[in-house]
Amino acid sequence: MYTVTVRGHMMIAHSFTGEVFGPAQRLHGATFIVDVEFRRPELDANDIVVDIGRATQVLNTILEGLTFRNLDEEPAFKGRNTMTEFLARAIFDRIRQAIGRGDLGDGANAIEGIRVTLHESHIASASFDGTI
Amino acid sequence: MYTVTVRGHMMIAHSFTGEVFGPAQRLHGATFIVDVEFRRPELDANDIVVDIGRATQVLNTILEGLTFRNLDEEPAFKGRNTMTEFLARAIFDRIRQAIGRGDLGDGANAIEGIRVTLHESHIASASFDGTI
Amino acid sequence: MYTVTVRGHMMIAHSFTGEVFGPAQRLHGATFIVDVEFRRPELDANDIVVDIGRATQVLNTILEGLTFRNLDEEPAFKGRNTMTEFLARAIFDRIRQAIGRGDLGDGANAIEGIRVTLHESHIASASFDGTI
Amino acid sequence: MYTVTVRGHMMIAHSFTGEVFGPAQRLHGATFIVDVEFRRPELDANDIVVDIGRATQVLNTILEGLTFRNLDEEPAFKGRNTMTEFLARAIFDRIRQAIGRGDLGDGANAIEGIRVTLHESHIASASFDGTI
Amino acid sequence: MYTVTVRGHMMIAHSFTGEVFGPAQRLHGATFIVDVEFRRPELDANDIVVDIGRATQVLNTILEGLTFRNLDEEPAFKGRNTMTEFLARAIFDRIRQAIGRGDLGDGANAIEGIRVTLHESHIASASFDGTI
Amino acid sequence: MYTVTVRGHMMIAHSFTGEVFGPAQRLHGATFIVDVEFRRPELDANDIVVDIGRATQVLNTILEGLTFRNLDEEPAFKGRNTMTEFLARAIFDRIRQAIGRGDLGDGANAIEGIRVTLHESHIASASFDGTI
Repeated sequence: MYTVTVRGHMMIAHSFTGEVFGPAQRLHGATFIVDVEFRRPELDANDIVVDIGRATQVLNTILEGLTFRNLDEEPAFKGRNTMTEFLARAIFDRIRQAIGRGDLGDGANAIEGIRVTLHESHIASASFDGTI
Repeated sequence: MYTVTVRGHMMIAHSFTGEVFGPAQRLHGATFIVDVEFRRPELDANDIVVDIGRATQVLNTILEGLTFRNLDEEPAFKGRNTMTEFLARAIFDRIRQAIGRGDLGDGANAIEGIRVTLHESHIASASFDGTI
Repeated sequence: MYTVTVRGHMMIAHSFTGEVFGPAQRLHGATFIVDVEFRRPELDANDIVVDIGRATQVLNTILEGLTFRNLDEEPAFKGRNTMTEFLARAIFDRIRQAIGRGDLGDGANAIEGIRVTLHESHIASASFDGTI
Repeated sequence: MYTVTVRGHMMIAHSFTGEVFGPAQRLHGATFIVDVEFRRPELDANDIVVDIGRATQVLNTILEGLTFRNLDEEPAFKGRNTMTEFLARAIFDRIRQAIGRGDLGDGANAIEGIRVTLHESHIASASFDGTI
Repeated sequence: MYTVTVRGHMMIAHSFTGEVFGPAQRLHGATFIVDVEFRRPELDANDIVVDIGRATQVLNTILEGLTFRNLDEEPAFKGRNTMTEFLARAIFDRIRQAIGRGDLGDGANAIEGIRVTLHESHIASASFDGTI
Repeated sequence: MYTVTVRGHMMIAHSFTGEVFGPAQRLHGATFIVDVEFRRPELDANDIVVDIGRATQVLNTILEGLTFRNLDEEPAFKGRNTMTEFLARAIFDRIRQAIGRGDLGDGANAIEGIRVTLHESHIASASFDGTI
């Protein structure tokens, strides 16, 4: 299996609902360093999994729709805790849609799996990994 | 599949038995940066895999039982080489026990897999990955 | 010159005032990885600059007073933009006060300089460096 | 499953053929930080997956055959784009051959899988993962 | 003293002249991760050293003039070895010129010093540090 | 001012004397990632501060004299606590001696300053910086 991984980041505010979260129930924020891994069993005719430049652009466009925002006010996340693992899934879904729209090129149809990892600090991260 | 990963570290002394180890047969030591990844297929009612704060506490408690020690003198490791990969398994087993005791909360029962990675330097690491 | 550096982090919300900041004028947030470097020309009788454990505790206590908060509502920062470089100075001042109170031990009086660096992402950081 | 991962690097020149590559069609170059992960289900009699020192030597020997070269002139890569993911596979194949020759010792026959990851910058990487 | 540091990267081919360089006399290449630190004694009216977004743009524009090229063919470097430390100085000079042109804004006139660091691998880097 | 920095590592056992050290009074160990920065005001005739390959060799030779050892039994450190900052100085002294012996080449006489940094974990480091 071949993979390509690209990196971006976003800086957001949010708060969590639930006693388990302690002081994180207060409005606070995070920088998320976002890694997206694309997987496919064979390379395409150009010897690539996906063009790294194009994959980076697609990721950055998705992150621009999230960064510099208070996620508590985003209609898409209403009633949910925007935990690191939850956001990994939300970005996974948006990348899958981008592939479906052809934003990553025709060859991207051969991508079988994606893993989205968000690093919230130097000591904690979360991910969502799925097939497409 | 969703994951959450938390990080801690320990600083230990040990020596290895076996000619393959060359100068590492002498008493020496290591800092191990320890990453523990928890996996489950669905998020719980709080939108989490496991609470990052609680997971960090459980990991740190386990590492406090190992750090600042000479592992050659630990009864639990008698007759074994405390290699990086061996220690990854030892920490995996202790985390599995902690989950069994409920230290990570009731929701942690839905955790299906764990991966423990120990970084022994900037150029070498080892891990153990298993289901629970 | 000898140094010791310890690391902690905080997760905060804030917004900026000024057209130069573009979308960062909206409420957003950041994880700041915080490195504090302590400098002195000679080691003390224990062969240390400062005890790393104690320095980490002092840093963590200061960061607990900032993390999981909306800095726009902190009286101490009223009317200021809580930029990364500004926060580096704010933490510098609090460490200097902690040394003055003796929180780092008597030997810490020999510390001549401190540098506080905040990493706001994998591609940007800021610092304040001063004598004490 | 147990793993051991070792790291090396190489510094090469190359160019790509295909309009998708834009300015990367020009002769340019890269530092590749190379991580090789070895996997096996059980440890050997020495409590290891593979000797880290020996694995590092095998990797460095392979990288010495690639580094400080213009890959456009390497017969082994003629007519191919030496993309990061393509090179990950090329190194995978050479490690598999080294194991077959016994360069990693007899115990290395129990290795079931290998993952080779090449980091081409702080924001992009690629890998090949396969069984042996 | 306050600092702000931003990061970019470039991927180039080159060769070196001089027996001291051994196999690096052959055409090869490198990824350089480039950190630029800006220093000034006081913050401006916006509480910043320099706008991080604008500084990143200026750095990226300079790096676009170098990346995806064979530096052996660049007239600006004719007759020189484009070592990591030499390139750190070349980028320093271009940033100083950009400040002189006002590309970083009027407030950037208060910047007193710059440090440019190029990481050529996980185990080697070089820098040039100067006043402006 | 120009710099070049090279990296190596060592893995040692030791214990500390003094109540301030708490559990670190027990025999334990550490991996130290060691960065050595060489500084000089002008480049030499080859456009370098010091040859990176040669500097790496000199550093590795020094580290081979320390790694895989119990520092409590090293005559050179008798009666001292081999703290991270203390070891940074010890390595600084050995590099200065290597330069004096000509191990880094004749050009290395122009080196004016050296900084040795030891990373003992992902959250703590220490250094010694001096002129030569």
